[in-house]
Amino acid sequence: MRGYTLPLSPRGEANITPAPPWHYAGEVVAAEFWADAQAAAATLPDGLTLDPESNGRTVALFFDWQFSGEQDEYLEPARSQYREFFLLVDAIWQDQPVSWCPYIYVDNDAAMARGWVQGFPKKMGAIHQTRAFASGGPATPQTARGGRFGASVSAVGHRLAKAVVTLEKPLEDPSTIQRPTINLRHFPRLAVGQYDKPAVHELVMAVFENQQISDPWVGTAELELLEAPGEELADLKPIRMGVGMRFGLSYTVTQIRNLTS
Amino acid sequence: MRGYTLPLSPRGEANITPAPPWHYAGEVVAAEFWADAQAAAATLPDGLTLDPESNGRTVALFFDWQFSGEQDEYLEPARSQYREFFLLVDAIWQDQPVSWCPYIYVDNDAAMARGWVQGFPKKMGAIHQTRAFASGGPATPQTARGGRFGASVSAVGHRLAKAVVTLEKPLEDPSTIQRPTINLRHFPRLAVGQYDKPAVHELVMAVFENQQISDPWVGTAELELLEAPGEELADLKPIRMGVGMRFGLSYTVTQIRNLTS
Amino acid sequence: MRGYTLPLSPRGEANITPAPPWHYAGEVVAAEFWADAQAAAATLPDGLTLDPESNGRTVALFFDWQFSGEQDEYLEPARSQYREFFLLVDAIWQDQPVSWCPYIYVDNDAAMARGWVQGFPKKMGAIHQTRAFASGGPATPQTARGGRFGASVSAVGHRLAKAVVTLEKPLEDPSTIQRPTINLRHFPRLAVGQYDKPAVHELVMAVFENQQISDPWVGTAELELLEAPGEELADLKPIRMGVGMRFGLSYTVTQIRNLTS
Amino acid sequence: MRGYTLPLSPRGEANITPAPPWHYAGEVVAAEFWADAQAAAATLPDGLTLDPESNGRTVALFFDWQFSGEQDEYLEPARSQYREFFLLVDAIWQDQPVSWCPYIYVDNDAAMARGWVQGFPKKMGAIHQTRAFASGGPATPQTARGGRFGASVSAVGHRLAKAVVTLEKPLEDPSTIQRPTINLRHFPRLAVGQYDKPAVHELVMAVFENQQISDPWVGTAELELLEAPGEELADLKPIRMGVGMRFGLSYTVTQIRNLTS
Repeated sequence: MRGYTLPLSPRGEANITPAPPWHYAGEVVAAEFWADAQAAAATLPDGLTLDPESNGRTVALFFDWQFSGEQDEYLEPARSQYREFFLLVDAIWQDQPVSWCPYIYVDNDAAMARGWVQGFPKKMGAIHQTRAFASGGPATPQTARGGRFGASVSAVGHRLAKAVVTLEKPLEDPSTIQRPTINLRHFPRLAVGQYDKPAVHELVMAVFENQQISDPWVGTAELELLEAPGEELADLKPIRMGVGMRFGLSYTVTQIRNLTS
Repeated sequence: MRGYTLPLSPRGEANITPAPPWHYAGEVVAAEFWADAQAAAATLPDGLTLDPESNGRTVALFFDWQFSGEQDEYLEPARSQYREFFLLVDAIWQDQPVSWCPYIYVDNDAAMARGWVQGFPKKMGAIHQTRAFASGGPATPQTARGGRFGASVSAVGHRLAKAVVTLEKPLEDPSTIQRPTINLRHFPRLAVGQYDKPAVHELVMAVFENQQISDPWVGTAELELLEAPGEELADLKPIRMGVGMRFGLSYTVTQIRNLTS
Repeated sequence: MRGYTLPLSPRGEANITPAPPWHYAGEVVAAEFWADAQAAAATLPDGLTLDPESNGRTVALFFDWQFSGEQDEYLEPARSQYREFFLLVDAIWQDQPVSWCPYIYVDNDAAMARGWVQGFPKKMGAIHQTRAFASGGPATPQTARGGRFGASVSAVGHRLAKAVVTLEKPLEDPSTIQRPTINLRHFPRLAVGQYDKPAVHELVMAVFENQQISDPWVGTAELELLEAPGEELADLKPIRMGVGMRFGLSYTVTQIRNLTS
Repeated sequence: MRGYTLPLSPRGEANITPAPPWHYAGEVVAAEFWADAQAAAATLPDGLTLDPESNGRTVALFFDWQFSGEQDEYLEPARSQYREFFLLVDAIWQDQPVSWCPYIYVDNDAAMARGWVQGFPKKMGAIHQTRAFASGGPATPQTARGGRFGASVSAVGHRLAKAVVTLEKPLEDPSTIQRPTINLRHFPRLAVGQYDKPAVHELVMAVFENQQISDPWVGTAELELLEAPGEELADLKPIRMGVGMRFGLSYTVTQIRNLTS
């Protein structure tokens, strides 16, 4: 039996996602905000503490993604394109400023599987962001001062978040965009009395290789996080907004760094 | 009761699509091919004949669209973005070279309603095309020589078409891209004995105002049109391929030209 | 060119829905309520007035449907099954008690097309209702006293309505369930200055032939109608609840009765 | 942090699925067939061998499911209903006749997560089966001699399987329906050089408690398994058909039996 994820199979083609390298290219609309510090801290796993300097700073990110493995998978966009929404909460791991991803939604099963393997807690959702089309006209913003980009996420027919980012100027130093991302690989046991004793439970740091950022802009942001049954996203609703951002992002994943062992 | 399409309502906000102007911006992957001339001619309505010079020439187009009315609807992308696939068959109307749209699929109900009003025979489908992301890397082609773009359409869980376009060079004269598009506004009667006596049955010419094309490229194309129950698309399957194209397109619709009255 | 609806085609198989007869079989969860009388009256077209006796009485219906034409289409459930939500407002047409359908949502394009032809103002939505499975156990209610059935509708990722019906007893006289349904066939013009002069605008009465009701139950109902952009459903939100119902329903459509001409 | 699956969260409500008990009620359309014995054997993991007596016997099952945990989740059908398709291949584990599930598709993320935890290799798909509505008429079969039920599954816009089952008579002894189901819990490592050294890789036997079968019928079956990129289902295409079946099924899951340790 061959394959990386289930289903393992005779030819190794049926698995929901093949082994890395996993290549990604995308476009992101992002909104920085401050959540209630206690609510933000409550989402953190053992090993992380809230960053006392930023004290509840969180970023909401809406992504249009294109995936490829080693077989030019981007030529089958029905399978390889997907959209994603997630939060990153400022945290500290062993004195190092990091980001923690408490909630993430995606519209593609292979992306959900890759997420679980990396420790991203992905659920299914419907995610959309305004695009900038080069042909112009009243139906599209441009990547320019005053350009406005809407974004939203829904799950199970409930709107969970809605944002608008208005561009002001190119972002001079895009290196400030990203802290290391911390996730939790977690795979439960299915045995009576052991539901709280997962088979896998490992704090990990994401490793994004060959990361490239294109055309980063910064501006203002509006964001709503909305109540819905079966969701805790709205506990982090903004008490203050920071900047809005929009940029392109590409990277490759082949591994994670295990922080537990 | 207010509104342009159903449902008419007290405040005029519930209608599936408001009255024009309808603004569009999009990106298209297109494949030119020759269908069997008899099969192509068989799709034409009264008033059109096959173009004897091009003799079955047809273009398959895959669109990523963003719509806006007068209310910056592009800021609600969950509602205003959609994807579309259609064929345009070379035809002649009163000695004028035109295009006829026999089949078209879309993934958005408002776009389907606007289509019916314009005479585009839209059905629901799932349409995808490879995107070019500026951030680069192995997960994305670039809009450059050798860039490859895949595209597909499915309906009711059947794959209907699949294409790959490989870019060779910028297209010098994009005015060659489009002939006037002819559609058939058609709204049936629901009375026994009158199923073949539609309430509306009008040949019309599309009017695309303020049309802007961006970054047109030309190259080679592969295309398959596949058999499926309830579909006749595969009757037009390619017997010879022409060029592949990719370009941005924006325009506004406020009216059509009625060719019947 | 053959077919009943678009697309007309050489073999007449591609049209989104064939000519009648249209056969339906389904299961409905329904909640009776009273809307604000002025809000209910505001949804009515010319020719209808609010029923002064029931004064805002409205029924919300959630349907699981299976469609068939003359070709055993029910054997292709991916195409022929769909789900639907709609409201019926008590009204008077020429001294006759009738129902008016102001808003309706469906998850299937052929059902949407048949709806437009009949004058039902269908938009796309995601509709669900609890089912009663005969195999029993904690995951299913039974069609029996105390059985509870949930239902919901969402559109464009916004939850629009949510209901729970609790069964009390079989409904003795199911003939009370339904008044004649009035719809508005409406097909716009696409000409500048004529957006408010539709090509078709006809008040019609639905004709449901061979109507059969199975296993009707009555009980209590809860219902919420929720605000969402681009919707006016919540203007009719319940000020008082009536009964809840659940029953099976089958009928055939071959025609409508035109009330305008 | 509370919860059973990801995302773990402050209140324990956001996890994609809560800890067991997991209650299920459903309806199944099933087709028995013989695959090529070598192809069937090639899908088996270490520890299983093909059942030499049945020699490639496989069952294809299409399910309409309703899930509930401890909170009457069946009242939120948008979240708790789903549809599923899978194959069960006759195999032998330690001299015991068992079933192995090589491929399974589902249309709900919580069901996918529960599947992975149980070792079912779930991917997303679109699954449909004809329903029997009690109200009768030409749009529905009845659960009776001659009743015909269609079923299909698609993934990524490719039709993968299609079946028709025709009922002949009630099934006298439904205990013959099911052998113990064997799955493979598998959770990969994400470390260079260790892609083939999963963190979890355990052969398990499903435990279906309180299993109840309702109204089982047997008859004839037709089944096609179709080629599609990224799938190996069609390697098991029928070389001979067995019976068709339709029945209701309910059970509860709280655990699995680990066969590895």
